[in-house]
Amino acid sequence: MDIREGKRQDLTPWGEVLSEVEAEVRPRLGEAGAVATYIPALARVPARQFGIALATCDGVEAGAGDADLPFSIQSISKVFTLALAMRALGSRLWERIGREPSGNPFNSLVQLETEKGVPRNPFINAGAIAVADRLVSAFADPKAEILALMSGLCGEPIAFDEEVARSEADTGYRNVALANFMKGFGKLDNDVATVLDVYFHQCALRMSCRQLARAAGFLCRDGRHPRGQDALLSERQARRINALMLTCGTYDAAGEFAFSIGLPCKSGVGGGIIAVVPDRLSLCVWSPALDATGNSLLGRAALEAFAAKTGLSVF
Amino acid sequence: MDIREGKRQDLTPWGEVLSEVEAEVRPRLGEAGAVATYIPALARVPARQFGIALATCDGVEAGAGDADLPFSIQSISKVFTLALAMRALGSRLWERIGREPSGNPFNSLVQLETEKGVPRNPFINAGAIAVADRLVSAFADPKAEILALMSGLCGEPIAFDEEVARSEADTGYRNVALANFMKGFGKLDNDVATVLDVYFHQCALRMSCRQLARAAGFLCRDGRHPRGQDALLSERQARRINALMLTCGTYDAAGEFAFSIGLPCKSGVGGGIIAVVPDRLSLCVWSPALDATGNSLLGRAALEAFAAKTGLSVF
Amino acid sequence: MDIREGKRQDLTPWGEVLSEVEAEVRPRLGEAGAVATYIPALARVPARQFGIALATCDGVEAGAGDADLPFSIQSISKVFTLALAMRALGSRLWERIGREPSGNPFNSLVQLETEKGVPRNPFINAGAIAVADRLVSAFADPKAEILALMSGLCGEPIAFDEEVARSEADTGYRNVALANFMKGFGKLDNDVATVLDVYFHQCALRMSCRQLARAAGFLCRDGRHPRGQDALLSERQARRINALMLTCGTYDAAGEFAFSIGLPCKSGVGGGIIAVVPDRLSLCVWSPALDATGNSLLGRAALEAFAAKTGLSVF
Amino acid sequence: MDIREGKRQDLTPWGEVLSEVEAEVRPRLGEAGAVATYIPALARVPARQFGIALATCDGVEAGAGDADLPFSIQSISKVFTLALAMRALGSRLWERIGREPSGNPFNSLVQLETEKGVPRNPFINAGAIAVADRLVSAFADPKAEILALMSGLCGEPIAFDEEVARSEADTGYRNVALANFMKGFGKLDNDVATVLDVYFHQCALRMSCRQLARAAGFLCRDGRHPRGQDALLSERQARRINALMLTCGTYDAAGEFAFSIGLPCKSGVGGGIIAVVPDRLSLCVWSPALDATGNSLLGRAALEAFAAKTGLSVF
Repeated sequence: MDIREGKRQDLTPWGEVLSEVEAEVRPRLGEAGAVATYIPALARVPARQFGIALATCDGVEAGAGDADLPFSIQSISKVFTLALAMRALGSRLWERIGREPSGNPFNSLVQLETEKGVPRNPFINAGAIAVADRLVSAFADPKAEILALMSGLCGEPIAFDEEVARSEADTGYRNVALANFMKGFGKLDNDVATVLDVYFHQCALRMSCRQLARAAGFLCRDGRHPRGQDALLSERQARRINALMLTCGTYDAAGEFAFSIGLPCKSGVGGGIIAVVPDRLSLCVWSPALDATGNSLLGRAALEAFAAKTGLSVF
Repeated sequence: MDIREGKRQDLTPWGEVLSEVEAEVRPRLGEAGAVATYIPALARVPARQFGIALATCDGVEAGAGDADLPFSIQSISKVFTLALAMRALGSRLWERIGREPSGNPFNSLVQLETEKGVPRNPFINAGAIAVADRLVSAFADPKAEILALMSGLCGEPIAFDEEVARSEADTGYRNVALANFMKGFGKLDNDVATVLDVYFHQCALRMSCRQLARAAGFLCRDGRHPRGQDALLSERQARRINALMLTCGTYDAAGEFAFSIGLPCKSGVGGGIIAVVPDRLSLCVWSPALDATGNSLLGRAALEAFAAKTGLSVF
Repeated sequence: MDIREGKRQDLTPWGEVLSEVEAEVRPRLGEAGAVATYIPALARVPARQFGIALATCDGVEAGAGDADLPFSIQSISKVFTLALAMRALGSRLWERIGREPSGNPFNSLVQLETEKGVPRNPFINAGAIAVADRLVSAFADPKAEILALMSGLCGEPIAFDEEVARSEADTGYRNVALANFMKGFGKLDNDVATVLDVYFHQCALRMSCRQLARAAGFLCRDGRHPRGQDALLSERQARRINALMLTCGTYDAAGEFAFSIGLPCKSGVGGGIIAVVPDRLSLCVWSPALDATGNSLLGRAALEAFAAKTGLSVF
Repeated sequence: MDIREGKRQDLTPWGEVLSEVEAEVRPRLGEAGAVATYIPALARVPARQFGIALATCDGVEAGAGDADLPFSIQSISKVFTLALAMRALGSRLWERIGREPSGNPFNSLVQLETEKGVPRNPFINAGAIAVADRLVSAFADPKAEILALMSGLCGEPIAFDEEVARSEADTGYRNVALANFMKGFGKLDNDVATVLDVYFHQCALRMSCRQLARAAGFLCRDGRHPRGQDALLSERQARRINALMLTCGTYDAAGEFAFSIGLPCKSGVGGGIIAVVPDRLSLCVWSPALDATGNSLLGRAALEAFAAKTGLSVF
């Protein structure tokens, strides 16, 4: 049985683990938490959904719940555009982006000011916009490049949700502010509108848990492509992305995630979270309702349950 | 040959690795960097010293350079007082201390204000003072308790350097400020002077690389005492300290350390840094000259060399 | 002799005072200080120019130096758009704009964040942009309204420098950032581009010292139009603008201006400063080179000399 | 009739104005607002009290309500210690203290950090502590010097309330923090405890509205002593204190006070506010309940009523 043929491994031991995790958190689906409402397309998503999927380094995949339902990956995309930029630019990428946690969102703005337009890390919005600026410089068609990367990683076509992208553009005043702020410090080389067009599109990628777990596979395989042996990144680069995810991947809850889950994670306001167990597997969980820190409420609970059940932790 | 008998393992493979690391960084001893000068006792320490030591989970120890020279452990002590407080208080400890990275020192003060006297994490000074306050409440003689812990972990007597402690007390205006600030928010239960007396003493512990590597052993052994099988902490607690070290252990360079070294570390302005490879070994490196982030310049270089040579990384 | 006939009063006692002030500061024209360079049209202005003019409540005008040379009034325009908005909206204007000094520019951004998009006062850029938004709501053609006001106050046609306005628009990233930031907080009612078009134009008004001194006349005449008895504003409103100028009119040097000059002032990066002696006269000084606080270096010196010579001060 | 004999001038026209003001605000005595509770001695003061008094430049005094009831002057004392320090040190005083508004209390701490221990102005706590440090350097017995100044200004003995001073010392953690913070930056020359002893005592002065109105007389008389022609300060110095009061005298409401009252004011958390009409009179109002900005709720209302009734304003 080959997962690349689309056959499910949901009854393998991994499938059982995920089903147990689902059983544990599903009763809490009615709990507080609120779906992101800043754009209509996200606000319409029903809150009571939950999916989880994983892909091991040796090719086993498993899923539970709404593992195949596509959702808006939002900030999870920052991991993939970072990988694209690291591959294209190597260490030059870091001339305009830091690698330190930023504390809360409030700090990230203050720091953008005191650090003269250099974002603290590539996972805050300002940092991801700076990465998008690098992609605009590096590629003739950066949006096509992003789609090619994602489709290649998944082995199936991935697309932007153009309605979501348009919505982001129409209402993303704070991102427009951040981009202009950096431009004012001379830290963006390209036209603000072009850069933001890339950024708003990457956030609007639609993917399922299963696809994201598979796509993140290069992070647990020392940079090797999840579908083959080609190196997407060097081992060193892949580990560094994991380090950034652990220290900066979940907004102002990175410390809490490290403390209680102990795995590199990256979340998005669409309710998805990817996680990496180095040399073992990559994982994606999704549930639309968010907690006060902007991370998926049940996604976080599911990752805690998964870590507790399996004992998997980088620590 | 048993390290507990004091016999050296420096010619084992681990000893060779450490000697290679030493050979790589020793030529750089003349480089920039400056010894901490805020108290005379630290300012007098000659900059051109370098030591490194490790202790594996199965009891092998190795060292190179000035591995047996005692130095002022300063903030490295925060790991051990945290362990003491977690053991005594369990999760109640976290009622008054956060677990998030604080960004730069500037932020830590701003955050102490906006978060009404609750320090961001136990490894910034405010957080360690809050931990000391908990120890004053929990123990009749918290300083004796600290000495007992350290001596027990090392299997040999450890002492405070009273001259350093006095110096800290005489010139530690900023720490007095932080403590009074928290007291003003009602976040310290005990007398400011008593709490600071504990804090200034813990910073004044004198230990060698070899002793610190050994003492940190419980962190790579899932909480088990380095000299026996007794649990100092639960596995979960030990892992959480590792997570805190990785996200918050090296001032405003935690992101950089995670990115380029990939191991939980805790540094002190005396020039020491401890590091943990979970399930494998604990490590201590020392060289007094500090870089701009307050971390040992060559200590950091040595840890990078060690990680590169051994491929050890949590990611 | 009537100044409204364009005849000069420069040989009156007031003219002598101004000539003395000019004689005192002109030798310092070579001094440090730098012309604003953020747009080419300002960067081209020769630094070694100095003009000063005043208009008394009873209609006497006097000038010295380059009193009739037009320059870019920049932020001085904020006084006049504020007057326009206060007249149109009364106290409703203050629903979205504060009246407190903002400390340094750094704070103004932090405060915009902590105060959820409500600018601290109408004289910081964010505040003036909020005022422009009110004008866009209140008037069919706000730019025409501004020109009508200024021309009416001066008794001669006043125009925008379209090249400067275009330059501001092309390079005003930080203002675009501020406007989008406020829009993101729901604190601008109109389209960002429309609001900024008004703002960039008001900054691009070209006027001479003599014209500005005359135009500011309503501020020393309890709100009455400088060329007649009509009330532009109520006495109360005029006094309140003076209060705002004194506490917030000169960037982060408002305290210093109050301390050493003691008059309500408003400066612009074009090098102009207007000042008000309530019930006596209004004044404008201009010299393009700026000090570190963004205020005209010699303009400030001239106002200090004027205050010292005349003993005029609100204190 | 001599006011120094205790005879009232309350039936003069000024007395009538004050009585009208009292009649206007007294019905609001039951309104919200809260007495300062941070020390027991202040918390015990009944909220429903109101007094007002003034002293003209030519020696007329008037009062209404509880004009003769002594209260804790708290931060109003900062005006008088500043005068003492300006007289003793001249412009050297400003080497360690700024003259700019600080925005809200939050900013004042941030600015103390970014400006390396130099307080923004002498009326925030940090600034007044810096002034106290200067007094400790300048005078053998600074507390006696303060009492001599106040008694001399009033023409009757003024004393510290030792219970209040002790209370301040016992609970003033934030002031202890500020002083240690500045000491850590090398910006206090004297022992922290000695400096704070002066500061806590100056805050504990007990005076009535009538006494404070009289004592502040030098501020409306160009620096001349209110009981004679001796110069306490130069005209320039007196005006500069008025400028500081207007821009920084009422915490984060200085802009609002300037806007709606238009007079230099200095308030204290004991519920007192002094105000100055240059060349005319000095004024003191008192009512213990405070508004959200820490200024006396009815004191502020009374000053607005006074300004509206008399048309007195520096603008």
